[in-house]
Amino acid sequence: MSRKSKEEIAEVYSRMQDHICNELELADGSGKFIEDRWQRPAGGGGRTRVLKNGTIIEKGGVAFSAVHGPTPDKILKKLNLQKADFFATGVSIVLHPKSPMVPIIHMNIRYFEMDNGEHWFGGGIDLTPHYIDGDDAKYFHQEVKNVCDQYDSAYYPKFKNWADDYFFLKHRNETRGIGGIFYDRIKAKDDLEFEDILQFSLSLSKLFPKLYGHFMKKNSLLDYGENEKSWQSLRRGRYVEFNLVWDAGTKFGLDTNGRTESILMSMPPMAEWDYMHETKIGSKEEFTQDHLKKGIDWLSFVK
Amino acid sequence: MSRKSKEEIAEVYSRMQDHICNELELADGSGKFIEDRWQRPAGGGGRTRVLKNGTIIEKGGVAFSAVHGPTPDKILKKLNLQKADFFATGVSIVLHPKSPMVPIIHMNIRYFEMDNGEHWFGGGIDLTPHYIDGDDAKYFHQEVKNVCDQYDSAYYPKFKNWADDYFFLKHRNETRGIGGIFYDRIKAKDDLEFEDILQFSLSLSKLFPKLYGHFMKKNSLLDYGENEKSWQSLRRGRYVEFNLVWDAGTKFGLDTNGRTESILMSMPPMAEWDYMHETKIGSKEEFTQDHLKKGIDWLSFVK
Repeated sequence: MSRKSKEEIAEVYSRMQDHICNELELADGSGKFIEDRWQRPAGGGGRTRVLKNGTIIEKGGVAFSAVHGPTPDKILKKLNLQKADFFATGVSIVLHPKSPMVPIIHMNIRYFEMDNGEHWFGGGIDLTPHYIDGDDAKYFHQEVKNVCDQYDSAYYPKFKNWADDYFFLKHRNETRGIGGIFYDRIKAKDDLEFEDILQFSLSLSKLFPKLYGHFMKKNSLLDYGENEKSWQSLRRGRYVEFNLVWDAGTKFGLDTNGRTESILMSMPPMAEWDYMHETKIGSKEEFTQDHLKKGIDWLSFVK
Repeated sequence: MSRKSKEEIAEVYSRMQDHICNELELADGSGKFIEDRWQRPAGGGGRTRVLKNGTIIEKGGVAFSAVHGPTPDKILKKLNLQKADFFATGVSIVLHPKSPMVPIIHMNIRYFEMDNGEHWFGGGIDLTPHYIDGDDAKYFHQEVKNVCDQYDSAYYPKFKNWADDYFFLKHRNETRGIGGIFYDRIKAKDDLEFEDILQFSLSLSKLFPKLYGHFMKKNSLLDYGENEKSWQSLRRGRYVEFNLVWDAGTKFGLDTNGRTESILMSMPPMAEWDYMHETKIGSKEEFTQDHLKKGIDWLSFVK
């Protein structure tokens, strides 16, 4: 068994973008993705697809890119690497639903390779409910764990903690949502393992439309009113804060002349900020706020 | 003539906060500032004052603080300084008006001192109109220049360029607004000069309510509709992007356990993001977008 070439990985990832967009359009019922194809002056390009004002999805993006060229100095310095050309391909998704009862979701898979032989995989999937629900959280984490366990029983516990640490707003002392998994710089020691890690990323991406389809279908039936819309706007504000202040990928992209519109397709359609906002004692909002914490074992969560 | 002590400077600055809040409440007509007093665990504290839902101001903050203690390692490292205790005091203002025809304004004055003798002043004032108007821009820059010229004719040109460079969104290749002045780490060589720089900061703060009062009165009479509100929301999105991605003060505060609610009082009440938004040819929005550039000489600007 030989390992796939970088071009083959880009090809599989781009077909995964097609698959996910199709599934999301079916689940939404009316929304359609609009595609922007773009070229990177220094090499490569991408296809950014954005859906606006669907039945369930208010604003969402599914982006594919495959870029190459001299490795930016900032990456070389940060990762302590020697000068070489790089190739990077990935699929990145953020969906903001209309209903505050449906969670925001994010997924990313990426492959990075340098012509001096360095290579690694990264990715993850995490959920940001406007309202945390124990059963939803349990379902989400169990489904993600099932996929992890098909590959390595060490993946879920390790990558779950990684997500808790990564999706954390230090200035608010709160997690972005209920986490999920996050992994980065995973290297293969041989071709067999390489293929295995690649397949893991594909299994995660295949899980994505199934998982989010579940929440789109189930949670969009839940009632809500002005109070829930207002809380959703504040939670969207926190999503903006995380992405612009802490997200390493976003910061890096904006700092190295990435394609701004593609990077910021993760922004919600709108967000609000309220000085010193306080949740009511015993409210659903307070329950959510109280569970934006690292280290919660959602698999065995009991209300 | 002897120089004022750090306690005296904090006292004058805190009285300036009082003066500005009073003037703004008078100009707004109905809005009232609510005060939060807070203590910094490591030393000092502040008074954050926020006004919500006034007649003209939708959300605005005027914050005073005077903090002290061991200088955070991040400052020592960044500025290449030796370990010492520090004292910092300042007044910081951001006002988001209800009407898209009234500009967003920001002002800051600050004084920093270390017990090894290091000291400096910083500050500035800048305007972010949702709609750039040549006459408004000229008036604003002329008034600011007049104050600068009372102290040093080199101030305005130097600090104007500094503001152009500082209030810049690199990832959008656009300035935040029409700039103004920005200065930092201005040291005095003797007591006379020290007093002069301090007075300069006080003259700027006294100019502030006069300047913004002018725009509150004049521009709040201008008509607007859905189109202008929608554009305002997008411009507020850019304001959020600048503050969370590029503003050194915000980044530093969030990174060093500053008081989050005081730092983020600069956030607009709400903001919107639209993927690949395009302005109409010949529109007021396009005119604004085209003038978010460094190096424009607003004093002699002709439409």
